[in-house]
Amino acid sequence: MSEQLEGNCLVAQSGGPTSVINASLAGVVTEALNHECIEEIYGGLNGVLGILNEQIIDLAAESQQNIRGLRYTPGAALGTCRYKLKKQSDFDRVLQVFEAHNIRYFFYAGGNDSQDTADKIAKLAQERGYDLRVIGIPKTIDNDLVTTDHTPGYGSVIKYIATTVKEIAADNAAMGQHDLVQIIEVMGRSAGWIAAGAALAKRRDEPNAAPHLIYLPEVAFSQEKFISDVQHVLQKEKYCVVVVGEGLVDADGNYVSTDSAGADAFGHSQLGGAGEYLRGLVEEGLQVKARSVKLGMAQRAAVHCSSQADNDEAFMAGQAAVKAAIDGESDKMVTLLRGESDGYTCETGLAPLSEIANGVKKLPESWINEDGVSMNYNFYKYALPLIEGEVQVPYENGVPNLVSLRAEKIERKLGAHSFE
Amino acid sequence: MSEQLEGNCLVAQSGGPTSVINASLAGVVTEALNHECIEEIYGGLNGVLGILNEQIIDLAAESQQNIRGLRYTPGAALGTCRYKLKKQSDFDRVLQVFEAHNIRYFFYAGGNDSQDTADKIAKLAQERGYDLRVIGIPKTIDNDLVTTDHTPGYGSVIKYIATTVKEIAADNAAMGQHDLVQIIEVMGRSAGWIAAGAALAKRRDEPNAAPHLIYLPEVAFSQEKFISDVQHVLQKEKYCVVVVGEGLVDADGNYVSTDSAGADAFGHSQLGGAGEYLRGLVEEGLQVKARSVKLGMAQRAAVHCSSQADNDEAFMAGQAAVKAAIDGESDKMVTLLRGESDGYTCETGLAPLSEIANGVKKLPESWINEDGVSMNYNFYKYALPLIEGEVQVPYENGVPNLVSLRAEKIERKLGAHSFE
Repeated sequence: MSEQLEGNCLVAQSGGPTSVINASLAGVVTEALNHECIEEIYGGLNGVLGILNEQIIDLAAESQQNIRGLRYTPGAALGTCRYKLKKQSDFDRVLQVFEAHNIRYFFYAGGNDSQDTADKIAKLAQERGYDLRVIGIPKTIDNDLVTTDHTPGYGSVIKYIATTVKEIAADNAAMGQHDLVQIIEVMGRSAGWIAAGAALAKRRDEPNAAPHLIYLPEVAFSQEKFISDVQHVLQKEKYCVVVVGEGLVDADGNYVSTDSAGADAFGHSQLGGAGEYLRGLVEEGLQVKARSVKLGMAQRAAVHCSSQADNDEAFMAGQAAVKAAIDGESDKMVTLLRGESDGYTCETGLAPLSEIANGVKKLPESWINEDGVSMNYNFYKYALPLIEGEVQVPYENGVPNLVSLRAEKIERKLGAHSFE
Repeated sequence: MSEQLEGNCLVAQSGGPTSVINASLAGVVTEALNHECIEEIYGGLNGVLGILNEQIIDLAAESQQNIRGLRYTPGAALGTCRYKLKKQSDFDRVLQVFEAHNIRYFFYAGGNDSQDTADKIAKLAQERGYDLRVIGIPKTIDNDLVTTDHTPGYGSVIKYIATTVKEIAADNAAMGQHDLVQIIEVMGRSAGWIAAGAALAKRRDEPNAAPHLIYLPEVAFSQEKFISDVQHVLQKEKYCVVVVGEGLVDADGNYVSTDSAGADAFGHSQLGGAGEYLRGLVEEGLQVKARSVKLGMAQRAAVHCSSQADNDEAFMAGQAAVKAAIDGESDKMVTLLRGESDGYTCETGLAPLSEIANGVKKLPESWINEDGVSMNYNFYKYALPLIEGEVQVPYENGVPNLVSLRAEKIERKLGAHSFE
């Protein structure tokens, strides 16, 4: 046990929301209440932007109902930003704000960039001799952070996608009087973690079930192979469910989308995307009816179909961040560690922020089958425990009852920040 | 009580699946077992096609587990078809098959076209003096059948859409540092019933909540008004959630889609659609970031987010069909009747098949606000009870546990049908 540090804590959220980032926030608040050395529990609005602008709210003033409700509320209750601290004056300002409000504990939930920001703030505080403990909380549906077995947010997004694929397959099978190709586009700009998760819609002993084909950014896309893959499925089945990651690239590394074939009359920069492109290929190349689904932001917000395991771990990561800081740790991120035993267990660890900031965890190529369009045993073993359990979301008037924070702002003590 | 008719019954499913059409099937099977005058309980595979081809299965041979599981299984467990009986030889064949298997009760779940088919079969049987009772079961997410207050399938699709809109809005609100326009395309080729249902994502006392704008096929689309509507929202909010029915048309009755602006390099006939088109308009016309979601067939298969009220009524409609036939009714469809009292109640009635076959229920224009992009009290009053309650779907390995029928085929008694 290190020397006790008395002061206030501040938690903020960054980057794209997930359906469990607020569960981590609930974990931080719940745990912080247990420690007397933490006086006030503050939330920074819109990530580091709220710190720079001194937009800070009093989380202890929120009702218990609200804090509980955070576990079932998608989005990011504090708001997020994609603003990147770059200039020295920005970093200086963060410390000024922390000092003005006696913030001695800083918890930041986010992906690589956010952990990088947290790392820089921690190092600057140390340089300046300002006693501050900084702990990062992993958050991203992309599952691409190193040092952690997986990231909070990933289990829920793939549970929703696998569920959706399984349901669409049941629908398409019923319509199976004629060939039908269904293209489902999912997120994942630079890695196939999310698309791979669609594999969980079928058990490994159901090779002919949907999804029949999964196209990952890790496997260079070939039109000819795609057409032949689909044809092959349609020879055996009356329908073919294709899942494609939005970041699909060809052998030259170009994104596969309608753009690569030329923009439309308006020159839309993002028209279509990978899913629409594949649909076009099927209709043109095979003269077969094709339909597409683009889940877009629905997939990272779908708390109504989120994973209890993921939710619990996100909450636990928030709690662990506070505990670590109380124990004197700083400049580290909470990691999720998988137990060695046969049954799945998960506990938290810590890793240096600098390590996370500079790494990207890739989907192991050895987990992809040789056909390039399906996942093998290793992926199933890895991913199945992450989607276990169903979060029971409270409903009101037939729709999920989401919370909004009261968000009482604390008094500002500094002048406006100059972003110049 | 009419004279008791002894014989076998046959149930079949037709048209696009819903997440509750199998609940109606479960209702038919469960009720049929209660009546001794019904000897065998048959299912026709793939709608009328299975009857023509004598592809008939023994539903009484299914496990109770399977019949219970039908209540939580999307798609259409018997398979459906879009084949339309036209030639006299087809109709004759239906009666031959019914006679060969002593089928005296015929239950057909479907939309307008299917009820038309059922009507013709009923009338032909009467003409020929073949004792047959035909009862239709309403089924369509489109909610466009006349004589019934609403159709099984509608409540579930709008519950899923309203839930998705609410979740995406929470996500987008968190990202609200800059203007963001989210376009969500939903089904409904000829009417706005489904798009209108998105309104349930917000209460009527939350005028500024999402969805901010709903574009319905009932209201002629104008680019200028659309751009101005979005601008207006972005003046007040940091984000704007737009829901659009795929059947959106302009003042000339042309579908609003990327097609109308010219096909792309491949001449894809369906590229984009209304959602992608609106996204393009926003990015071009307002220089604002826009994202799109296309729920496609996911919306009619999403049993994991379906309405318990809808599921119960679908089951009840199946039961009522059997009861009516036992009572001597024929050439009628089961309807859902809303009680007159303040609290919502629903019971079943009957209406002549010919009436349903020839009508289309439109979304009342008086339920659309004057702004043309939101729904008023009358719609809320109508639709809210239809999304009440959450179906508890059993999960296995983190995904819904759907059933597949064993589908034991009965022996054929006739030669092959000639489709010439």
